[in-house]
Amino acid sequence: MDSFGWVPATAGNISVRFRDEAAGPGRIAITRSGVHKGFLDEASVIEVDFAGRPVTPGTKPSAETLLHCQVLTVFPQAGAVVHGHSVAGTVLSMVEPGAAIFFEGYELFKAFAGQTTHEARLGLPLFANDQDMARLAGVIAPHLGNAPLGYYIRGHGIYVWGPDMDAALARLEAIEFLLECELRRRQLAPNPGRFAP
Amino acid sequence: MDSFGWVPATAGNISVRFRDEAAGPGRIAITRSGVHKGFLDEASVIEVDFAGRPVTPGTKPSAETLLHCQVLTVFPQAGAVVHGHSVAGTVLSMVEPGAAIFFEGYELFKAFAGQTTHEARLGLPLFANDQDMARLAGVIAPHLGNAPLGYYIRGHGIYVWGPDMDAALARLEAIEFLLECELRRRQLAPNPGRFAP
Amino acid sequence: MDSFGWVPATAGNISVRFRDEAAGPGRIAITRSGVHKGFLDEASVIEVDFAGRPVTPGTKPSAETLLHCQVLTVFPQAGAVVHGHSVAGTVLSMVEPGAAIFFEGYELFKAFAGQTTHEARLGLPLFANDQDMARLAGVIAPHLGNAPLGYYIRGHGIYVWGPDMDAALARLEAIEFLLECELRRRQLAPNPGRFAP
Amino acid sequence: MDSFGWVPATAGNISVRFRDEAAGPGRIAITRSGVHKGFLDEASVIEVDFAGRPVTPGTKPSAETLLHCQVLTVFPQAGAVVHGHSVAGTVLSMVEPGAAIFFEGYELFKAFAGQTTHEARLGLPLFANDQDMARLAGVIAPHLGNAPLGYYIRGHGIYVWGPDMDAALARLEAIEFLLECELRRRQLAPNPGRFAP
Repeated sequence: MDSFGWVPATAGNISVRFRDEAAGPGRIAITRSGVHKGFLDEASVIEVDFAGRPVTPGTKPSAETLLHCQVLTVFPQAGAVVHGHSVAGTVLSMVEPGAAIFFEGYELFKAFAGQTTHEARLGLPLFANDQDMARLAGVIAPHLGNAPLGYYIRGHGIYVWGPDMDAALARLEAIEFLLECELRRRQLAPNPGRFAP
Repeated sequence: MDSFGWVPATAGNISVRFRDEAAGPGRIAITRSGVHKGFLDEASVIEVDFAGRPVTPGTKPSAETLLHCQVLTVFPQAGAVVHGHSVAGTVLSMVEPGAAIFFEGYELFKAFAGQTTHEARLGLPLFANDQDMARLAGVIAPHLGNAPLGYYIRGHGIYVWGPDMDAALARLEAIEFLLECELRRRQLAPNPGRFAP
Repeated sequence: MDSFGWVPATAGNISVRFRDEAAGPGRIAITRSGVHKGFLDEASVIEVDFAGRPVTPGTKPSAETLLHCQVLTVFPQAGAVVHGHSVAGTVLSMVEPGAAIFFEGYELFKAFAGQTTHEARLGLPLFANDQDMARLAGVIAPHLGNAPLGYYIRGHGIYVWGPDMDAALARLEAIEFLLECELRRRQLAPNPGRFAP
Repeated sequence: MDSFGWVPATAGNISVRFRDEAAGPGRIAITRSGVHKGFLDEASVIEVDFAGRPVTPGTKPSAETLLHCQVLTVFPQAGAVVHGHSVAGTVLSMVEPGAAIFFEGYELFKAFAGQTTHEARLGLPLFANDQDMARLAGVIAPHLGNAPLGYYIRGHGIYVWGPDMDAALARLEAIEFLLECELRRRQLAPNPGRFAP
């Protein structure tokens, strides 16, 4: 994510669900608050429970931990969540007047769960940014069931998930590719019209 | 290809024709279905015959294997085929209303077989995407003889080939450079007109 | 900074305040004049005092040393100053008719000192370039108290600082991300209007 | 140059004047024809004289060798010449109707010989591409004395030089930065007007 420029400064967060129940049930590993994600080491990752509370007292999880917990709670099959900020996503999320950015006809749709064809129109839901994470989680909740690509917080960043970290990162690569395509397409002309066939 | 961002998620495929007939005639090495091309290892590559059937039962070739087989069948001098997805190519292939993207006057034409001058106008044929590879191969077949740069499947990706992998990759670099030039040129103004002299 | 393309040729300068007073009070380490910042070694860094004079006679500090000294004098809590040139910043600083580039509603504001929310409108002050550094420092002086993101010299480059080098670099990453967003947004259409909610 | 994408396929050439006259007077080391400049080894570089003839019979210099010889002949103080193809330069060289691309007010001018201020307007002369190198050298000759940044062959690539390879590469970085700025500025609007103060 750092090599793509998606975690500038101390932005972004990544989390993984512990599958080994011997390690204790209901634990999540997540990046600590305030560290640069391009320079992660063991001390940069902490354990939290599904309410976002640190397992080791005194360790401070990121403010956005609650949104990771929410995804991992709602989707039992999800094993990893990635949250990053790209230039294309940030710009599109701030200029798009609709409630979602829609994509149509891309082969890369097949990177996402259950998608077997490019012949689809898929939306990336957009939510207004909010520093109150509990309130933001409440706004997002009713839409999680209809977010095949993940979701975007306007002017902030994306949330994408998958069965494991490799899958979540592959989907992030795919959706960021789509966002970059969409931004570049909108730079072609003020009213470029619909895509060819 | 990964360092350029041309194989996001598990996109893209590369194949090489076996030249050592002692290894068995009519074999192709091709990337397996569903692996990230930035993390290839020995297990990521399988053998298929020219009908796209796996040599080792139980190994699963990519759906696009048929298109690789087609190029290697039609062009006996081709030793390698590369298929990737770039942002520039994806966008242009989706906005271009014509049956091809045309390029004119580029020195980089000389990277392609038989081109000795920039004084040419070369087309990159565009085909509608299709999840049915046999049908898609049938649509492409009559145009392969007139595809000096390779060809593009709209919203999907490019196919480029050469006598060996180094040559195929060099041509891919050249055509992607042309696509990026063309996209950037179209971003200059709604009607930028023709290029200067 | 070099990997991002922000120190082309011999552009850019970085400086650090000596905190170890045993090393002598009032010393700054700064990159030497005329070296490429992507190939720094020990000999590329020299010591100056807060008036910008070299500690070791015969070593030549960069012409821009005075601007580093100014920031480190005005802000006792600043430990490092970075000065770089990006394409996005250079272009925006040359086309923006106002006295500052304004940003609004970005989550990345939180990378800057004292910013706890995206709900703000922050300006990056712009100053006309000048080869006379003493005169330029005099023009900048009255504005340093109102430069939450740093400042930009038109057609030249940015100055950003922080308590230490890691923090200064993180802020530089953040402001360059904002500049790239702003440039890309302005490429969407001649009059793209204000950002969506 | 490869890491910046300026030598796609087998494009580009670099040359160095032998300063050690013990090695024989009037020799130039230059990259061989047809090799990828991102994978240079000892065998990729050959020796030629100032008429562009190979010192070792049977080694084949690049077709563009004559243009390197010309620069090194006209400018005795030049020790290295770099020739590359960038997307920004290629596009601008093909859309610019004038005989040169002009730049104004950039601090980076100071990367070039004799430039001490940003307060200048410098032109990068443009020449029509030609596969006949002797003829092209003849067209370029009368303009070499007025090419403070180097020169550009339309749709082909740039020639930049300096006292040694480090200096030539630094200048290339600088001029490519200016070209990228200029291209991005022209993408802002059809008639963006002049730069702000």
